[in-house]
Amino acid sequence: MAFALKTLLAQSAGSPRAALIDDLVAANRILAHEIGVLDAYGHVSVRDPRNPNHYYLSRAISAGMVTAADIIEYDLDSKAVGQDRSDGYLERFIHGEVYRARPDVMAVIHAHSPELIAFGASSVPLRNMIHVGGFINDGIPIFDVRKFGGTADDMLIRNQALGKALAQTLGSKTAMILFGHGVVVTAASLPGVVSNAYFLNMDARVEEQAIRLGGTVTYLEREPGAKPPPPTTAAGAGANNRAWEYWKRQVTAK
Amino acid sequence: MAFALKTLLAQSAGSPRAALIDDLVAANRILAHEIGVLDAYGHVSVRDPRNPNHYYLSRAISAGMVTAADIIEYDLDSKAVGQDRSDGYLERFIHGEVYRARPDVMAVIHAHSPELIAFGASSVPLRNMIHVGGFINDGIPIFDVRKFGGTADDMLIRNQALGKALAQTLGSKTAMILFGHGVVVTAASLPGVVSNAYFLNMDARVEEQAIRLGGTVTYLEREPGAKPPPPTTAAGAGANNRAWEYWKRQVTAK
Amino acid sequence: MAFALKTLLAQSAGSPRAALIDDLVAANRILAHEIGVLDAYGHVSVRDPRNPNHYYLSRAISAGMVTAADIIEYDLDSKAVGQDRSDGYLERFIHGEVYRARPDVMAVIHAHSPELIAFGASSVPLRNMIHVGGFINDGIPIFDVRKFGGTADDMLIRNQALGKALAQTLGSKTAMILFGHGVVVTAASLPGVVSNAYFLNMDARVEEQAIRLGGTVTYLEREPGAKPPPPTTAAGAGANNRAWEYWKRQVTAK
Amino acid sequence: MAFALKTLLAQSAGSPRAALIDDLVAANRILAHEIGVLDAYGHVSVRDPRNPNHYYLSRAISAGMVTAADIIEYDLDSKAVGQDRSDGYLERFIHGEVYRARPDVMAVIHAHSPELIAFGASSVPLRNMIHVGGFINDGIPIFDVRKFGGTADDMLIRNQALGKALAQTLGSKTAMILFGHGVVVTAASLPGVVSNAYFLNMDARVEEQAIRLGGTVTYLEREPGAKPPPPTTAAGAGANNRAWEYWKRQVTAK
Repeated sequence: MAFALKTLLAQSAGSPRAALIDDLVAANRILAHEIGVLDAYGHVSVRDPRNPNHYYLSRAISAGMVTAADIIEYDLDSKAVGQDRSDGYLERFIHGEVYRARPDVMAVIHAHSPELIAFGASSVPLRNMIHVGGFINDGIPIFDVRKFGGTADDMLIRNQALGKALAQTLGSKTAMILFGHGVVVTAASLPGVVSNAYFLNMDARVEEQAIRLGGTVTYLEREPGAKPPPPTTAAGAGANNRAWEYWKRQVTAK
Repeated sequence: MAFALKTLLAQSAGSPRAALIDDLVAANRILAHEIGVLDAYGHVSVRDPRNPNHYYLSRAISAGMVTAADIIEYDLDSKAVGQDRSDGYLERFIHGEVYRARPDVMAVIHAHSPELIAFGASSVPLRNMIHVGGFINDGIPIFDVRKFGGTADDMLIRNQALGKALAQTLGSKTAMILFGHGVVVTAASLPGVVSNAYFLNMDARVEEQAIRLGGTVTYLEREPGAKPPPPTTAAGAGANNRAWEYWKRQVTAK
Repeated sequence: MAFALKTLLAQSAGSPRAALIDDLVAANRILAHEIGVLDAYGHVSVRDPRNPNHYYLSRAISAGMVTAADIIEYDLDSKAVGQDRSDGYLERFIHGEVYRARPDVMAVIHAHSPELIAFGASSVPLRNMIHVGGFINDGIPIFDVRKFGGTADDMLIRNQALGKALAQTLGSKTAMILFGHGVVVTAASLPGVVSNAYFLNMDARVEEQAIRLGGTVTYLEREPGAKPPPPTTAAGAGANNRAWEYWKRQVTAK
Repeated sequence: MAFALKTLLAQSAGSPRAALIDDLVAANRILAHEIGVLDAYGHVSVRDPRNPNHYYLSRAISAGMVTAADIIEYDLDSKAVGQDRSDGYLERFIHGEVYRARPDVMAVIHAHSPELIAFGASSVPLRNMIHVGGFINDGIPIFDVRKFGGTADDMLIRNQALGKALAQTLGSKTAMILFGHGVVVTAASLPGVVSNAYFLNMDARVEEQAIRLGGTVTYLEREPGAKPPPPTTAAGAGANNRAWEYWKRQVTAK
């Protein structure tokens, strides 16, 4: 299987598909090695823009070691395309069902950021503190898988039904906390989803630090009467692109 | 002595024993260099599955520099097997007595994680916050060596009697905090004990962060009426194995 | 354009201008790789001491990858000198307008330090805790771009008018927090601005830690009746120079 | 001058003096690169055991770049021996006066640890939390240089008189916080002083974390009626030596 994809990649070097998979590999390594969003667990996927019913996601290995040969093509039922594989992430339904429910989403991260799990457990809501966190003003829902048939003993998004419930709770938002588990982050591009995940973690740390100072806290709310920007539009796309260029170079040089 | 073990290892390259020692060396380096569980102090051991009355543990050096030649084979009295050695860890009785009392335990870590010592000193109990921390719901006892003859001036598990008291306080739990000292973590395998130690630290940080936010905190409790899984079963063995594969590659590449 | 500057640099190797640009490149890399002041975002500039109406600043890339070929020469209107470029930082007006308003300032950093954004959001003021933070006793204003025509949706210093408002709020101070955004730090030299930014972050962390301990906090106030030192004089210039020498060597060796 | 010392070192390779300077270089690099006690600022010295009226300390450069050629031999007046040098640390009087007042002290560190400056500013005292922090039970005085003629504008130990005042406040203790500035740590050996500084920082973080949990905190007090161990005896010399061996190898390998 890996062989089939390798052959295909060799045939299509320089093609849009090869470039997309190259970026997905970079995103895996950036998230694991440069910006602390993924540890040995968690995953990132990208939708195929030429075939929006398919998406790409690594086989079940740690993001920090993903190469192009590890990438699997999935349909929106989260079944590997044209092959029968048992080495995928158990929770790949997160990706498939978010892509199905949200045509605007082109990339998805599932991470286990401690600072966001803490907000999921607290009655204090995550709020926007930073100019690049506009999407936080749209709200960050908290999804509790136990209300949809998941069990406290693993909390995993084990199947399509739980993936659908998750996508429904996400609604039109950019990101969501999974109670006792982690986070789902979306965007209209791979550079965008990497930046959104980076800024979501940063926002949580800033809010926590501001609260700890013990005074009153002023949040960065949306302009009164302002229309929210499309939720998957990364704030500051130009800045995100230059961060992406830098981070990608850092993981490529290594 | 090191020579004898080296010879033996050379003779048995590829044997189960050589593979076990190879994994123990990797565990030492992962804990020191990849996941911040061990600093220059602390140790990790593994029981010999073919001879459950013996276990392997490095001579008294920092985990970050352990090689196969440093590994000593101990019996459950924590005496080096077939040799007379004085270069072992003073606190090796932690390992021997836990293996004696707990046939299900195959690997043991003794660490000095600051976030867990803090919980040992606080009246606020460590509770489960994360889907991979099911074992925390079984309870994390706090062991105070001063109640068993240890002294405040060193708090060390200096002998078999203190090791036995420690194992008795651990009981059937997966992990325990040593007041003013550190932690003991167990599992049914080396990958499991590494993951358990990693998640125990993470849980402590998440709980601390959730508390600091100042609202009410919701813990991830066991399903009402649910039977606890065997305490040394690492949550998410599949995920743990892929973390182990990654971490092991990271320390081997270096 | 990059070509023109490269040629010029080659012609003037060892010249004061080449040395200045060499130091600016080092400052970019120190801030990104050694002392955690800049992540993939933010920038640092230096005024040309032989032509105080001009300053140097990288094109819009991450500080961690800046080389001499990326440096652009700007006038105080933040227009590239002798060329028409569209690849500069959008927020370069921060630099141009601070240089215009403050003849004593020779170097400027714009960063997004989470610990300082937290103070910008809190009613608790940043105060001086450390012997190298004397400039904090002069006061750290908080600039809210929304009061000057900026919008909550990006908070950026998009044009000269916002840059002028920012410089006016900075007044004669050494550093200023941008609400919901980041910080501006100044000094009379590149080594000075790097140290000031480093100590400003450190001061914020010390104050936060002191507050969290829950007792009363004693701040390090200026000597009663003491005249404030010139605000852009870095405290401990000797010590700053030896830190600069070290950090520069660290990023040059890499 | 550096030449003279180099020649001397070459002549005496393998001598006790060369070994001592080798260890001092290692201590500088361990403190800067391995355990986060020194950043670009601060210093470490060692007394000459064969000539207790002399001590060794680097010229005024960052600890992370010290080599044997940078080491200066001082008398207890903190004057360079047999030469006239102006490139020493301004605050070398910390070392000279502590050695003069405390014949038991063989090594001294001056650092600027944020977590300890925070305790210096708080009414909450630093207390012992960890089994290796027995010396903290003897008390950690807080020295305010302003009461002895120092000024709030630099807080530095600029001369012998301030050094004497500092040594008097230290008394028989192992470590002391300098208000608004940093810390002085002592021990009977270089490995001991490195460990003491490491554990002092760790203790501060553990106490802070325990306090933040919001419950009651139990400290690790000395055994009732127990005689304090000599204050410069590092707790767990054996463990310290193995940490030292490891850290030294880490900085030598680089």
